[in-house]
Amino acid sequence: MMRRQFRRPLSEDEESEAENGAQEAMMKCVSCKEEYAASDAGTCRECYEEASETEEELKREIEDLKAKVHFLRFWAPLGPLDHHHQQRPAVAPCFTDVVLVASDNPVPVPAHKAVLASRSPVFRAMLENEMEESLSGTIKISDVSYDALRSFVNYLYTAEACLDEHMACDLLVLADKYQVKHLKTYCEKYMISKLNWENSLLSFAFANQHNAKSLFDAAQSLIMDNMDKLSKREEYKELVEKDPRLVVEIYEAYLSKQVNTAAHKDSSTKP
Amino acid sequence: MMRRQFRRPLSEDEESEAENGAQEAMMKCVSCKEEYAASDAGTCRECYEEASETEEELKREIEDLKAKVHFLRFWAPLGPLDHHHQQRPAVAPCFTDVVLVASDNPVPVPAHKAVLASRSPVFRAMLENEMEESLSGTIKISDVSYDALRSFVNYLYTAEACLDEHMACDLLVLADKYQVKHLKTYCEKYMISKLNWENSLLSFAFANQHNAKSLFDAAQSLIMDNMDKLSKREEYKELVEKDPRLVVEIYEAYLSKQVNTAAHKDSSTKP
Repeated sequence: MMRRQFRRPLSEDEESEAENGAQEAMMKCVSCKEEYAASDAGTCRECYEEASETEEELKREIEDLKAKVHFLRFWAPLGPLDHHHQQRPAVAPCFTDVVLVASDNPVPVPAHKAVLASRSPVFRAMLENEMEESLSGTIKISDVSYDALRSFVNYLYTAEACLDEHMACDLLVLADKYQVKHLKTYCEKYMISKLNWENSLLSFAFANQHNAKSLFDAAQSLIMDNMDKLSKREEYKELVEKDPRLVVEIYEAYLSKQVNTAAHKDSSTKP
Repeated sequence: MMRRQFRRPLSEDEESEAENGAQEAMMKCVSCKEEYAASDAGTCRECYEEASETEEELKREIEDLKAKVHFLRFWAPLGPLDHHHQQRPAVAPCFTDVVLVASDNPVPVPAHKAVLASRSPVFRAMLENEMEESLSGTIKISDVSYDALRSFVNYLYTAEACLDEHMACDLLVLADKYQVKHLKTYCEKYMISKLNWENSLLSFAFANQHNAKSLFDAAQSLIMDNMDKLSKREEYKELVEKDPRLVVEIYEAYLSKQVNTAAHKDSSTKP
């Protein structure tokens, strides 16, 4: 711990030195109010004041943007999922002109064509081109649970979702399928934050399957840091069986990283 | 100009002083790289680093919020007003279910009931209660130009408007009438930024008429700073004629401020 070292009590020698006039060399931080010496100097007063102004400005900008988000946010026709009233919408659908239906539950999720089309180019093409979905006013979504579908629709209205690891996967799949980039980034960020050695191989394969580039890179990087343990994992053996080309990608990336590191070392040691 | 004074060239006396060891008392600002003495000390290094991290975090939050705004923003059915094609919408209306019509121009402005109802409680009541407007699918807006109506509708979709002083007034009137708080705040901020002695009385009366509290206060405060010139203004005479009670409000506020200032002075001079 070398931080705050300049605040250790002065030794006897230093104290006498301080008395001899070196005391003026100590300055007081306007932020933490403690004294510090030249080697621990941060900013001058003027730069400090400018930085404070910048911070105030940034905070004001955040408040403005939050108010904008609040204004632009829609009430979703059904609102977020409420497990006590799962089958009965709390809010009456308002001017909705389309419903979405999940494969596991016949209860329709009402929505507005305009909202779906504005958030997803896939829905837009589907609805504008008078395909079956547009004419019938019903969009069937396969391979998705009612809960996930409802969270998905709610996100399209509010840019908000309550994620756990399972829901993040479900929503990422939907976001990829319907090209809702903002939601995809949101799920990827969440999954990257939950990444660990235990789930890295599954996450890697999942990211590959659903074109989640950031998650793919993060999982691959974690795997490459643990190459010695890799081949012992059950998921590794399964992946070799199921998708050997993907395993080859790991080895190729690992090798390329090794070559780069060696080249870098080589060039930095040369005169 | 007292800023940066600590960077003036050193006098001869000071230079010899510096050579005698006082040099150590100078520190280097990590931000502007200039030297400064104890009296101009800002922060220590640790506080400087913490502040930089905070700034980075705030900037990241701003990026996230901007992406959210972008995602939640709708393409308005007509888009912002394009003066070259004023009469012909550039974008085909998508799934719109209602039109708005201004008093000065029969060209309808298409919109979605769901969007209008979500942004304005007045539209919501109008449309949900199956009033004439809901049944006919046409909402007539009186005392408004086509340009202002279109900007108004565009704001409901995008939270953006291109303001000048005239448009700010028009939109504030609409925002007040249809209770679109976010737009009202936006117009008020703009008008406050354009406030000056010349337009203060008109702004004051306008703010009073349309319940614009911030603008009202700002205009009143500006008027009170110029009481000596007040009664000579033409607008003053007109206001006394038209709305004497409002003029009384100015005098009451002025008197109350004088009494407060006197009381404050009084208490601070007492032992």
